[in-house]
Amino acid sequence: MSGYEILELGAFGAWSDYVSGSGTKGKRFVDHDMTTQYIGVSTNAAAPGEGAPFWHAHSQLEELYIFLQGRGQMGLDDEVVDVEPGSVVRVGQGVWRIWRCAPDSPEDLRMLCVRAGGGVLAELPRDSERDMERPKPW
Amino acid sequence: MSGYEILELGAFGAWSDYVSGSGTKGKRFVDHDMTTQYIGVSTNAAAPGEGAPFWHAHSQLEELYIFLQGRGQMGLDDEVVDVEPGSVVRVGQGVWRIWRCAPDSPEDLRMLCVRAGGGVLAELPRDSERDMERPKPW
Repeated sequence: MSGYEILELGAFGAWSDYVSGSGTKGKRFVDHDMTTQYIGVSTNAAAPGEGAPFWHAHSQLEELYIFLQGRGQMGLDDEVVDVEPGSVVRVGQGVWRIWRCAPDSPEDLRMLCVRAGGGVLAELPRDSERDMERPKPW
Repeated sequence: MSGYEILELGAFGAWSDYVSGSGTKGKRFVDHDMTTQYIGVSTNAAAPGEGAPFWHAHSQLEELYIFLQGRGQMGLDDEVVDVEPGSVVRVGQGVWRIWRCAPDSPEDLRMLCVRAGGGVLAELPRDSERDMERPKPW
């Protein structure tokens, strides 16, 4: 899969305005808008106090959460960690995760979530499990 | 490879100060400082007019260049494209690439280069080929 392709996401300010086909605001799957081979990426924007609506875990995918702007928190199984610009969190298989922008963050949160599963992305199963009942850790 | 791990890179301003073990300034391989499974990431910082010192290509790895700050350019085989904050460039196998911060960029460049090769990163061969003789395209 040679060649190259360019997608323009816009600067951080534009990330919060993105609305997906299913109506979700502030989360964009870059690999839905360009054809990638092994690497999945989403851009994530959240105002103070906002964040992921539910916990999830993956059975095959590795994820790297790269925080770029704003202060936030991640729930990782039974732990809660603080994150800030430049925090990189690698999350392995089976770990339950959730994130948010801290209510007192001086700026909106901007974060990239990178994922890969050791094979061609399109051929990996939908390996994400959601837990809509698990309470948020904050 | 379950569990999680956190690495603090510092905000954009700190990326230019990073010096690798081999003395390279402004480029940090995140996956050398934390243990990742499938995903490689480097942080890249360059002042106006500066950038990668040579062209390179990969035989197996896919790369995504995610530009976050500053204006720049990429050479992609015989093309030169302009990039700005929010530009994502997917580069497939065999494509020769080089990048720089534009001489008239209003800000220093900050860019993430994400790579994966469809297998465990540590087991992939060193698949990068350099061309130290090929002239820069700008």
